[in-house]
Amino acid sequence: MKRIGVLTSGGDAPGMNACIRAVVLTAAAYNLDVVGFHHGYNGLLDEDYQTLLPQHVQHIIQHGGTILKSARCKALYTDAGAVQAAQVLHKLQLDALVIIGGDGSFRGALAIAPHYHGQLIGVPGTIDNDVDGTDFTIGFATAIDTALDAIDKIRDTADAFERIFLVELMGRHSGYIALSAGIAAGAEQIICPEFGPVSKAQLTKLLAPIQHAQLLRGKSSYIMVVAENSYPGGTIALAEDLSAELGTECRACILGHIQRGGKPVGADRILATKLGAYAVEQLVNGAHLMMAGELNQQAVLYPLAQTGERT
Amino acid sequence: MKRIGVLTSGGDAPGMNACIRAVVLTAAAYNLDVVGFHHGYNGLLDEDYQTLLPQHVQHIIQHGGTILKSARCKALYTDAGAVQAAQVLHKLQLDALVIIGGDGSFRGALAIAPHYHGQLIGVPGTIDNDVDGTDFTIGFATAIDTALDAIDKIRDTADAFERIFLVELMGRHSGYIALSAGIAAGAEQIICPEFGPVSKAQLTKLLAPIQHAQLLRGKSSYIMVVAENSYPGGTIALAEDLSAELGTECRACILGHIQRGGKPVGADRILATKLGAYAVEQLVNGAHLMMAGELNQQAVLYPLAQTGERT
Amino acid sequence: MKRIGVLTSGGDAPGMNACIRAVVLTAAAYNLDVVGFHHGYNGLLDEDYQTLLPQHVQHIIQHGGTILKSARCKALYTDAGAVQAAQVLHKLQLDALVIIGGDGSFRGALAIAPHYHGQLIGVPGTIDNDVDGTDFTIGFATAIDTALDAIDKIRDTADAFERIFLVELMGRHSGYIALSAGIAAGAEQIICPEFGPVSKAQLTKLLAPIQHAQLLRGKSSYIMVVAENSYPGGTIALAEDLSAELGTECRACILGHIQRGGKPVGADRILATKLGAYAVEQLVNGAHLMMAGELNQQAVLYPLAQTGERT
Amino acid sequence: MKRIGVLTSGGDAPGMNACIRAVVLTAAAYNLDVVGFHHGYNGLLDEDYQTLLPQHVQHIIQHGGTILKSARCKALYTDAGAVQAAQVLHKLQLDALVIIGGDGSFRGALAIAPHYHGQLIGVPGTIDNDVDGTDFTIGFATAIDTALDAIDKIRDTADAFERIFLVELMGRHSGYIALSAGIAAGAEQIICPEFGPVSKAQLTKLLAPIQHAQLLRGKSSYIMVVAENSYPGGTIALAEDLSAELGTECRACILGHIQRGGKPVGADRILATKLGAYAVEQLVNGAHLMMAGELNQQAVLYPLAQTGERT
Repeated sequence: MKRIGVLTSGGDAPGMNACIRAVVLTAAAYNLDVVGFHHGYNGLLDEDYQTLLPQHVQHIIQHGGTILKSARCKALYTDAGAVQAAQVLHKLQLDALVIIGGDGSFRGALAIAPHYHGQLIGVPGTIDNDVDGTDFTIGFATAIDTALDAIDKIRDTADAFERIFLVELMGRHSGYIALSAGIAAGAEQIICPEFGPVSKAQLTKLLAPIQHAQLLRGKSSYIMVVAENSYPGGTIALAEDLSAELGTECRACILGHIQRGGKPVGADRILATKLGAYAVEQLVNGAHLMMAGELNQQAVLYPLAQTGERT
Repeated sequence: MKRIGVLTSGGDAPGMNACIRAVVLTAAAYNLDVVGFHHGYNGLLDEDYQTLLPQHVQHIIQHGGTILKSARCKALYTDAGAVQAAQVLHKLQLDALVIIGGDGSFRGALAIAPHYHGQLIGVPGTIDNDVDGTDFTIGFATAIDTALDAIDKIRDTADAFERIFLVELMGRHSGYIALSAGIAAGAEQIICPEFGPVSKAQLTKLLAPIQHAQLLRGKSSYIMVVAENSYPGGTIALAEDLSAELGTECRACILGHIQRGGKPVGADRILATKLGAYAVEQLVNGAHLMMAGELNQQAVLYPLAQTGERT
Repeated sequence: MKRIGVLTSGGDAPGMNACIRAVVLTAAAYNLDVVGFHHGYNGLLDEDYQTLLPQHVQHIIQHGGTILKSARCKALYTDAGAVQAAQVLHKLQLDALVIIGGDGSFRGALAIAPHYHGQLIGVPGTIDNDVDGTDFTIGFATAIDTALDAIDKIRDTADAFERIFLVELMGRHSGYIALSAGIAAGAEQIICPEFGPVSKAQLTKLLAPIQHAQLLRGKSSYIMVVAENSYPGGTIALAEDLSAELGTECRACILGHIQRGGKPVGADRILATKLGAYAVEQLVNGAHLMMAGELNQQAVLYPLAQTGERT
Repeated sequence: MKRIGVLTSGGDAPGMNACIRAVVLTAAAYNLDVVGFHHGYNGLLDEDYQTLLPQHVQHIIQHGGTILKSARCKALYTDAGAVQAAQVLHKLQLDALVIIGGDGSFRGALAIAPHYHGQLIGVPGTIDNDVDGTDFTIGFATAIDTALDAIDKIRDTADAFERIFLVELMGRHSGYIALSAGIAAGAEQIICPEFGPVSKAQLTKLLAPIQHAQLLRGKSSYIMVVAENSYPGGTIALAEDLSAELGTECRACILGHIQRGGKPVGADRILATKLGAYAVEQLVNGAHLMMAGELNQQAVLYPLAQTGERT
């Protein structure tokens, strides 16, 4: 093994830079050259890449986003795209490719695999924590603290006005962020897809705990953390429907993309560093079509093809 | 002067607690008793209040929100309401009332004035900075840093995806927050009411600088900071209209209520402390129907009736 | 079981309040009364305590420090002290006591045990992470992020001046904080007790990597994270000795007590909530002389007598 | 005017990057080329510089430190050094030089002036706020918020232990940071050079308010903010002397270099942007040997030779 490639793909996550750094520094320790593709798989298809030396990753461990840029890439999921990706990897004489992203990005690797002679390894980088084979994904811990910081601020206003607030958090089709941030914020109610669908007809389920709290504490702030995609029409519609039922205004806050950015917290920098280093070590050991994850605080390999099963 | 009241009214702002603390500590230095009304003018009408001693305001300088709660109060703006408010002030033997809030809250004081024998003084507490007679309102500096923190995070994602983001900031009918946060964030474009109305027909005005930047820098992140109430249909509609014109997706983020909460920054704690202390000193000196503001770093009195002229 | 006590003891840690809240809310769910002692075991000896109802712990999950105050207590470690502590527990009809603190605080529980008819359970609350029987202690994650935030700032200055900085972190006799924060900060060198003692005679061990880095990268910032108690005379002496050897000024920063305070991060709030709730549940199940810890993300009981073995 | 130079000198301050950005972008608007010298005046003497184009300053507005590096430079203060500096400026055909730094750095400009045919302009960049001719220096607002954040954390621990803490803040020979951060933190006592010297003989002055507070509030946390260089032997010696007098342990925290780094707050980014732009505009207007400052929120010119008078 002489030369490896690395790319970041899908929604960006805090800690992706820390992971790129770990890949580059570990590769240097093994005397491997590293090439970084820009804009996820697009850079692979378009041959848009750069050499990555240790000096290129100095002091990026604390930065959000990704120096390699990210993107989604539809072209890869055609046969022609997958073949072309493999051809570019061969042309650049890359013995392996490290993909930092979520399970959608890993499916891209699986598409390339039949056409590529080298090794493919994934590292779970997504705020959603919805990847099987790892306890935590890179970016999840930071996203929770970003959400918490926002909810703590909303609590100030909710308290001052003794008002009901709905705070919508990201998570695609999983409620990990909502559940964790909700517990950590001391939210009075948490709504996430895992608890089953909620529709206008079942609004009573959500109203009961609100009314119970009002009975117990009198007028006071009340925060519902809502995972995105939890209610038909979205969280603003939910706030309106609750307002109508309760006869008191419920406000909705959609946190949105601020959850993706920002300086990674310590836990994400350490996880990213550990998994980036481990991925390169395991490539050297021959790993292929695996994801470098962490289970019970141990770095482990997990079949890339099974990473999407959890959701 | 023996006994004064204090309340916080309107949208809460970081630093309101610091201001309450300054009022109470300064009053104590003058041997004045202090009564704090809950929920703004509602607590005045409902006789919902508490004694405020120095120990009640210990270590609240760093907390967002307001320990006295806040609210809007429609009842005050009827004749009966204003009369009742004055009666309660008389009944509680209050020689003066300190109102911490925006110019809307000051109009409440003006309504009470004809019926009240005591003194009324305002302190500008609102994140919007839209009060005449003071360079800065309490809460404005913190709101900018909260907005900045969010925009910096969005920049990470915008950079990773080289995408256009619209970030909507608060400000009611003024663009102070948007302008300041936009400059400080290095936003590529700022839209606020003071620059004149923007409608779908005039979209070209907004498109030109985007296209110019794309020409100059190629694909790259682009952040537009948009003051609320700047576009018919709101910032989500603006994002959609821009997307349609540009043929590339523009995302909207509505920061919302997180801008109101949080620990006040140093500038707000100092301003709140200065103006709270000054308000009590000036009450002792006989001030009435004035606002305690800061112009050119000097605490000054400004007629309460003129505080709403700026907007 | 009808009535339990709770106290926080030893160095305060972010998340102690979240843990008190969880104990109180869980106890309420089991219809147990809760009494909170002030100033650690001192409040037990002095009968200085308060009733803790759910409303007392509302919105404290996000606050650093401890509403029950903390302290060290020498009197407890005499026979008379231990006997008196048990007598007070009996007098107040407490069926159990929850001790939130480090292994030093747990030794206090072991001292009381022979004289007390009720149950004793510990919850690991200390920033040092030096308690056996749990993967993480409450406060550790926050302490790392506080340290990181400081090191990131020092990196700015170190970079601007291309200077060597030594940053001393807490940890008593363990290097967990130093190691984790050092890795997460991308520190060029980490010194902690577990790596063996360093004295002036062995300074070469520390100099070699500095000189290697200078050779490789030229003049550039260089950050050494140093666990407290790692060098005879302290980190300032180490900085001076390194300066003398290198002929270039090395600056020392002692982070100190800022590492103990602050808003707990999400991970600490969740851990504190989980372990506080689990401790009460296990008391109800009959647990005695155990610590409620977390291993591999599962809440577990661990003998209180063995929690001090790791160090 | 065709070509200007820019450098950052002396202690780095948050906002220096924002100022470099403003200089470069404004220069581009005037069609001026910009050269940035590295390591302050050292880069001028050593001809160590780089071209600065708009793309070099993209997205640096939010970063602490300085991309041009900083340093102190003794060589400049010899006649030979000043002559050489002027020669390099002539050789590089620079019509003007912008110096971002404190009054020490401005003295460097005054030394070069007699030998240089071009224009010299200063911009006040230092956390200490000890420059005459401007209400605020770039970096001061951020330093206060960094100090506040640390003191708020120390307050948590001080409260938990009801302990006296001394927190030493930077400021060289001025107490601006200590005074502002102390007020904003609600510190019980502030010690800074402007209040007159304190020695062991005059310790009673400091003890009296502590004892008064203990009388009034009983045991409780007590924070003294101490400007550096306020006590013979330093703040650690002061803590020891106070401990001996009071018979209770007083802890000292030396905040140190973390006050220099970090993301600039909004106020510093705006001030840096305003003054950087104004400096270039005024160079075009012919300004020479002036500093671009801000008085009463208006950008103004102030004689460079008088900037050191305040201290």
